Amino acid sequence: MTETKAYAAQSPTTPLAPFRLERRAVGPHDVQIEILYCGVCHSDVHQARDEWGGSTFPMVPGHEIVGRVTEVGAEVRKFQTGDLVGVGCMVDTCRTCHNCQDGLEQYCETHISFTYNSTLQDRTTRTHGGYSQQIVVDENYVLRVSDRLPLAGVAPLLCAGITTYSPLKHWGAGPGKRVGVVGLGGLGHMAVKLGAAMGAEVTVLSTSPAKEADARALGAHRFVVTRDAAALKQERNYFDLIINTVGSNIDLNPYLTLLRLDGTMVMVGLPPTPPQVGIFPLVGQRRSLAGSHIGGIAETQEMLDFCAEHGIVSDVEVIPMSSINEAYERMLRSDVKYRFVIDLATL
Amino acid sequence: MTETKAYAAQSPTTPLAPFRLERRAVGPHDVQIEILYCGVCHSDVHQARDEWGGSTFPMVPGHEIVGRVTEVGAEVRKFQTGDLVGVGCMVDTCRTCHNCQDGLEQYCETHISFTYNSTLQDRTTRTHGGYSQQIVVDENYVLRVSDRLPLAGVAPLLCAGITTYSPLKHWGAGPGKRVGVVGLGGLGHMAVKLGAAMGAEVTVLSTSPAKEADARALGAHRFVVTRDAAALKQERNYFDLIINTVGSNIDLNPYLTLLRLDGTMVMVGLPPTPPQVGIFPLVGQRRSLAGSHIGGIAETQEMLDFCAEHGIVSDVEVIPMSSINEAYERMLRSDVKYRFVIDLATL
Repeated sequence: MTETKAYAAQSPTTPLAPFRLERRAVGPHDVQIEILYCGVCHSDVHQARDEWGGSTFPMVPGHEIVGRVTEVGAEVRKFQTGDLVGVGCMVDTCRTCHNCQDGLEQYCETHISFTYNSTLQDRTTRTHGGYSQQIVVDENYVLRVSDRLPLAGVAPLLCAGITTYSPLKHWGAGPGKRVGVVGLGGLGHMAVKLGAAMGAEVTVLSTSPAKEADARALGAHRFVVTRDAAALKQERNYFDLIINTVGSNIDLNPYLTLLRLDGTMVMVGLPPTPPQVGIFPLVGQRRSLAGSHIGGIAETQEMLDFCAEHGIVSDVEVIPMSSINEAYERMLRSDVKYRFVIDLATL
Repeated sequence: MTETKAYAAQSPTTPLAPFRLERRAVGPHDVQIEILYCGVCHSDVHQARDEWGGSTFPMVPGHEIVGRVTEVGAEVRKFQTGDLVGVGCMVDTCRTCHNCQDGLEQYCETHISFTYNSTLQDRTTRTHGGYSQQIVVDENYVLRVSDRLPLAGVAPLLCAGITTYSPLKHWGAGPGKRVGVVGLGGLGHMAVKLGAAMGAEVTVLSTSPAKEADARALGAHRFVVTRDAAALKQERNYFDLIINTVGSNIDLNPYLTLLRLDGTMVMVGLPPTPPQVGIFPLVGQRRSLAGSHIGGIAETQEMLDFCAEHGIVSDVEVIPMSSINEAYERMLRSDVKYRFVIDLATL
């Protein structure tokens, strides 16, 4: 066991504050990682404030982790001390169900050990995340990170990157495909960069005309102001795929009508209450509303390699650990371009 | 112009009653059909009572038409006098849009001329349906009907049959696939017969244990009482495809959780108000909620040929035209196994 400095929420209503936790001793298949950067995901706030229910405290959030290997277990073959690595939303799954066997660990039917606010496969040992100095993770749930990219910008790829990469790949984003992105935040700005790098035509659908220049700078080919009814009508039956990154309750139906025949809108944000979905728009052009959940371990590695090859990182604002509570408030106001990343050297 | 006996609704609140309408003279590409049988679809009631909005009156409902050709235009090549034929939900479409060109006329992006309560491509001439003695339809929207099957049972194939056949085919129902059917009415009983004939494993999901024997007689391999929470929990992550035929507002979310990874629930019923759809169940196993609208002309012919080959017809109760208002009331109480069909000889 190693004592580790961290920041934790002690209850849904208290700000995050310094905390000390014990990390397990390095087992034969474990990798011990000195955390260098950890991204701040909207779901950190949802869980720290128990907005989805079922949160357990104290909680150390953080699942967009990059760091350097400081020790490896005797049986570890994939990594050695000094390697740059990443850890995303999962630190273990059952490894035996159909989905785990197919490399789709994010859909494990038995039990996903999320990186924090969860338990290991024993269902008892609680997990704690990346707002801390170090973490010990089974090598099968650790990713290789390139040294060619700025590490702070790599951290958000472990959640925001894979969460948008996976549906873009699954629903065939590429040359000749028209992809719409709703919401230009942590997830949305990654969807724009990744969709454009895959060769798709990317359109940002935004309520705010002020975002057009930023959207185009990120790689968007088109920009539509969704409050402009005439402009929106022009987009009817246009998109093959819409990636909806908005995690609050917005009316989904105007977006559904923008899909062409057999088009799909994929939800990667998680509105807290079930939205009303018009069945007529679905039936009218055989449209689908779907959901997608992060990505598997192999696919996450593929995404990191794709980003290294294409020079893609998240646009980040690096903060000290002590600014985390202020960062939460600013994130809720969308006052960040586009992801806060904690520099753990400040802890 | 030919005067034709019919039954019409004069307003959303009046019962259907005898009516006389003019059918157009047979043009060069037209087929004139003596109507023998017409199925009674739930959407006839929705539209006769203006429950979806936009209905126009007087209205002669009916889009599950079988009959015999009595005259053909000079240019007609596909049909001759005496042929048995069918007409479904559409009597024309734009024929030039992308979807029409691809044989997906049911998703015509310009204007579908529905068989009744609609207009022809001139956007002016009103259409009237199969609760009448004869109809004149362009040959491209007329289907060939086998003389090997009882004609009254063929009539509902033109809507209930194709509406379930098309999504079963599109989403790959066949050997090794697990298909659930929600609602055992006009659409649902066809989904069971067709899904089983395609080689899929078919499960009826019903609130009523009393329907099990009927479901199995129709060809269902399994039957699950959805009010039995323990039984329903056993079905989690089970189905590749669920065909939801219920046109009223039921809670969709318990059904979504029954889908396995990448499974789809297809809505073919049309609830009048948009149901609430949980995003967590969609995200959890990359599930989809989709809609499907009847089928194209070529696919409708394929379905009729498939039914002739497999000896599939709808289970029907044949009624005289004068019983139509009583039939509407009984249909709303689900008091029919499984489709009323009007014998037009009684008009």
